Amino acid sequence: MNKLNDILAYNEEFVANGEFEKYLTGRFPDKKMVIVTCMDTRLTELLPKALNLRNGDAKIIKNAGAIVTQPFGNIMRSILIALYELGANEVIVIGHHECGMTGLNSDVVIEHMLEKGVTQETINTLRNSGMHLERWLTGFDNVHDSVERSVGIIKNHPLLPASTPVHGLIIHPETGKLDLVVNGYESDN
Amino acid sequence: MNKLNDILAYNEEFVANGEFEKYLTGRFPDKKMVIVTCMDTRLTELLPKALNLRNGDAKIIKNAGAIVTQPFGNIMRSILIALYELGANEVIVIGHHECGMTGLNSDVVIEHMLEKGVTQETINTLRNSGMHLERWLTGFDNVHDSVERSVGIIKNHPLLPASTPVHGLIIHPETGKLDLVVNGYESDN
Repeated sequence: MNKLNDILAYNEEFVANGEFEKYLTGRFPDKKMVIVTCMDTRLTELLPKALNLRNGDAKIIKNAGAIVTQPFGNIMRSILIALYELGANEVIVIGHHECGMTGLNSDVVIEHMLEKGVTQETINTLRNSGMHLERWLTGFDNVHDSVERSVGIIKNHPLLPASTPVHGLIIHPETGKLDLVVNGYESDN
Repeated sequence: MNKLNDILAYNEEFVANGEFEKYLTGRFPDKKMVIVTCMDTRLTELLPKALNLRNGDAKIIKNAGAIVTQPFGNIMRSILIALYELGANEVIVIGHHECGMTGLNSDVVIEHMLEKGVTQETINTLRNSGMHLERWLTGFDNVHDSVERSVGIIKNHPLLPASTPVHGLIIHPETGKLDLVVNGYESDN
């Protein structure tokens, strides 16, 4: 089975049939939002549908767990670029229930790495080079706290445009139901 | 205008009407892929459609530019967790033409920050604290090289499961047409 070829073959048909036409849109988000959410497979179609976001409405950033950990990491950079260069003016962090990052244990991940052929020597080399694998491969205890923490890192970032609303939500990965964690309009005042 | 309330009101209807039912799926990706792509607003619906990815098929990671910069950053962690803990066994990096990260100039971004009220003192404090804003706020010269570079960082990562195919593609943000940059099956051998 060659998944890459399957994708390329499908894509050729997709383009030839003009199926892209119904998704044509501009480069700047119509709703001027930047969303940080999880890479979870159940959210691919469900999340935009459940928020009424169409092609063109928002910049969507995704990682494992919708977590912003580093004020000067890749995710925060993406948020700032969306706000300063691409017309967005609000941020929403959307975690979800039943997230794989809930209770993620670095010992288990490292065990799986060893089982799949990563050597103990590699792990030791990284540990002795200042890579904190235990901290790096950790998720969160509960999604509510995690969303609050990520909203806080964004809201307090020294380079965030003043008075940018930063909201926090939790989505249910089956029903799409949203629960409000942080209302960025209120926490602004 | 209260965009948050608009979203929450829409969402209530969405759930009440059972519109989520057609997106029900499992937590593990059916096609066992993890995709790293761009937050660009034109790709929200277009990219899954153009690759024939439905809810449930893949973990999708998104940031500004589909760039993997740090071997021990947030994006690489998300890729490893998808591979070790969530059943994925192939990686595809998908950059796109007309990306906002092409030619992104940190001087311009910093200028926009100053215009929006970030003080010169804050910029100076960060610079003098070892934050390399010039490097951090930079994109790439061309998307082809960027995709190759990101594929290389993933492929050479010391913690990647051996023989994981890592492909590189470029998508057109209007037609969805895919161009092959790296065929991970071939570069594997």
